[in-house]
Amino acid sequence: MKVTVRKALKTDMSSVLKLIKELALFEREPDAVEVSEKELIEAGFGPSPQFNCLVAEVENTVVGMALFYPRFSTWKGRSIHLEDLIVTEAMRGKGIGRALYDKILEFGHAEGVRRVQWEVLNWNEPAVKFYENSGATILKDWWLVHMQEDALKNYIENKE
Amino acid sequence: MKVTVRKALKTDMSSVLKLIKELALFEREPDAVEVSEKELIEAGFGPSPQFNCLVAEVENTVVGMALFYPRFSTWKGRSIHLEDLIVTEAMRGKGIGRALYDKILEFGHAEGVRRVQWEVLNWNEPAVKFYENSGATILKDWWLVHMQEDALKNYIENKE
Repeated sequence: MKVTVRKALKTDMSSVLKLIKELALFEREPDAVEVSEKELIEAGFGPSPQFNCLVAEVENTVVGMALFYPRFSTWKGRSIHLEDLIVTEAMRGKGIGRALYDKILEFGHAEGVRRVQWEVLNWNEPAVKFYENSGATILKDWWLVHMQEDALKNYIENKE
Repeated sequence: MKVTVRKALKTDMSSVLKLIKELALFEREPDAVEVSEKELIEAGFGPSPQFNCLVAEVENTVVGMALFYPRFSTWKGRSIHLEDLIVTEAMRGKGIGRALYDKILEFGHAEGVRRVQWEVLNWNEPAVKFYENSGATILKDWWLVHMQEDALKNYIENKE
């Protein structure tokens, strides 16, 4: 089985959105995806792209993707954030995720960043093990905080 | 006491770095700060700035800062990430943090993002309470994963 990893094109965003929705279902948040194909195209392929995206193909079909962008750590400086790395369920366990993972880490290393970072659900044991085995550090004492659009609106409109 | 919140200038980066180091000490990681004033200036004030920074001043002295930048959520699209919000210890409890927090949320709201997000240490109870009271959601089932520079180098050099 030949796996090709290449830079995503605008025309891949439909397949990429399908993978995003598949992952949201796995993460028990099937209704959380509000982003549209149009937004992915505008954000990723406009004059100042907000992310980079790789896709993995087998026999000319997109079966995986990795989406990442720069962040700035006040401790480490420039870093790379891996937002999503997804392989469609039927194609897991074939080294496709590893191929994408390697490309991202190689990219970070080549860019000279002090850190590549991402987030993992604490019940996703195989993923946690995989990351630990590759040398990554799991930080268990931080919580994520999200102020969603409706809460944001509510806060702005009701503060003194 | 008059608090002024304004956009940070290059010349504020020395004060900003002091605040970053003060926070790292509070977070029990005094040696984690590798970033330099020069890096802050290059990253924040170059041709394609990697972050925005606000400072809070009292009597022409910088006593607080907030550093943030855009991220891209595959669920919500464009979002704002608040990397750090710091008020120097002697000036806490005077509404300075709230003034910075408000500005960031107003900025996110004005930008029309679907989410403003950040991270909090799970033992920092006052901060967690403050965020919850303002309408933010605390996500406790995610872990952060960091591949630091040395682990990255090691992985790249030793993978098959």
